Amino acid sequence: MGEFELIAQYFSKCGTARSDTAVGVGDDGAVLQVRDNYDLVVTTDTMVVGTHFFPDDDPRALGHKLVAVNVSDLAAMGAEPTWLSLALTLPVVDEAWVSAFAAGLHETAEYYNCQLIGGDTTRGPMSLTMIAKGIVPRGKALTRSGAKVGDYIYVTGTLGDAALGLQLCQGRHDVSKKHQTHILQRFHYPSARVALGQALRNIASSAMDLSDGLYSDIQHILARSGVGASVDVARIPLSQAIKDSCDTATAMQLALSGGEDYELLFTVPEAKRGSLDVLLSPYGVAVSCIGRITGVAGKLELKYGEQAFPYQHTGFTHFG
Amino acid sequence: MGEFELIAQYFSKCGTARSDTAVGVGDDGAVLQVRDNYDLVVTTDTMVVGTHFFPDDDPRALGHKLVAVNVSDLAAMGAEPTWLSLALTLPVVDEAWVSAFAAGLHETAEYYNCQLIGGDTTRGPMSLTMIAKGIVPRGKALTRSGAKVGDYIYVTGTLGDAALGLQLCQGRHDVSKKHQTHILQRFHYPSARVALGQALRNIASSAMDLSDGLYSDIQHILARSGVGASVDVARIPLSQAIKDSCDTATAMQLALSGGEDYELLFTVPEAKRGSLDVLLSPYGVAVSCIGRITGVAGKLELKYGEQAFPYQHTGFTHFG
Repeated sequence: MGEFELIAQYFSKCGTARSDTAVGVGDDGAVLQVRDNYDLVVTTDTMVVGTHFFPDDDPRALGHKLVAVNVSDLAAMGAEPTWLSLALTLPVVDEAWVSAFAAGLHETAEYYNCQLIGGDTTRGPMSLTMIAKGIVPRGKALTRSGAKVGDYIYVTGTLGDAALGLQLCQGRHDVSKKHQTHILQRFHYPSARVALGQALRNIASSAMDLSDGLYSDIQHILARSGVGASVDVARIPLSQAIKDSCDTATAMQLALSGGEDYELLFTVPEAKRGSLDVLLSPYGVAVSCIGRITGVAGKLELKYGEQAFPYQHTGFTHFG
Repeated sequence: MGEFELIAQYFSKCGTARSDTAVGVGDDGAVLQVRDNYDLVVTTDTMVVGTHFFPDDDPRALGHKLVAVNVSDLAAMGAEPTWLSLALTLPVVDEAWVSAFAAGLHETAEYYNCQLIGGDTTRGPMSLTMIAKGIVPRGKALTRSGAKVGDYIYVTGTLGDAALGLQLCQGRHDVSKKHQTHILQRFHYPSARVALGQALRNIASSAMDLSDGLYSDIQHILARSGVGASVDVARIPLSQAIKDSCDTATAMQLALSGGEDYELLFTVPEAKRGSLDVLLSPYGVAVSCIGRITGVAGKLELKYGEQAFPYQHTGFTHFG
């Protein structure tokens, strides 16, 4: 048995088993039973060392994050996560690293009830690609293209925490001791809003997850839906950690242009807006209305209350 | 628009469009309509520079091969290819390279009627991961685990040609001029046996594709099925190019231990063996019976006619 086959053992011998998996790891491919009258949703995310993470990052956190960022895409489409595939490329076999990475991956897959059903393990510069699959009742997937003029714009949770966590790791920003655990958790162990995403199937007109920052991500909804947006930045939800650690300008920069929050951004027609808080309260994450969809295609207007809010966007980009 | 978004254009603006794709490239994920009463089959293959290909390999051929090797896994399971995802990691953006790679990928995807429905494009050391999806009538997928004692063992096409092509490229083996085109084509432009794989759904008891060489690949069927095999190497089909270019020992080495043929290896119960040639003749590729499944679990017995065939396996491995 080669060293790479040994490594593959870490990913085949354990983990969630689903009854709708006819054939999992170990054949030319997996065989999956997609429920009748359901659509399949497929997402892909690659994390490359030096681009998305540091060589000495905690491998358990990386395993978690790889699953969470993929499942977050499924959540944004209202899908129920079901299966994961992993393409793992490693320069050398460091068994301690692989063991911790696999543990993080499996515990997060288990949490979201996803089964790892295959993939490929090869030698090369470190690169982690995950393909997540989920299911959604036929025709019910949420997309970026359904926003209509007059719809209300919402986000889940609080924005900017993960970007502050990255700055804390890099020694570029200080955070008081009492907030450090929370902020680092938000960066290393993001949550995918899976239950809430499914609850939005019959409510939201469009949805996506926030991976690159609100300012740049919302443009995708505007482009795909052919609409504009007016956002009141004073209504963007901020954590106590950000409020205590940053001046207003910095907080806005983190919330608008910081990436990796993995909160949901979605739009709701006026007719479905009533009692939204009540409807969504079982899902354990706050939702905040931050603006409305306008008819000026492609235009994002930022306000602070009634004032215009001049803003210099500095893109969050993995390519520096 | 960043350079990587420009590159993404090469993969989103053209290619096959399928009517069962509800949402393709451009959202958080793709939304796919798997036919009712069909199973989904998913395969993953990664090609890393320096491990699976050379930096100066023709990018059009790489685009072809990435699709073909994934579709070959689907063929081995009796599936109809439907969708592809691409995770493309590149160190720099060389537009000529990307353009040629995309052309090879699209023309091969078109040939197999597969739609590229998403993926991820990132900066990093060159790595190509493809995830192929296909569909198969529920419960009809061919696997490695169904071979039974007494079943006949078959392969499609001829074996060893791709390995000879690799040796020709590396200057390690000479091939006469009249055979060079054929041998290089077999290495750079492998064919996936898609139609034949689907025809085997109600015939074969097990199946897989040959990517690492018959000697090592057949062990997967033996392990998963809990059986042994007796193979008559004199019956392994060889191309005229191999016969003209190699002595018998070399030909056997290439056919048994050379990789990347992407022919199918399958087993057929005696009751379904009659008229197999006639049944499979419309699919344009010869099938050859090379042996039988035995009851000695895990044991591969090689013969040359009635003689024992002593053989020193030198594994074809991408890891050297």
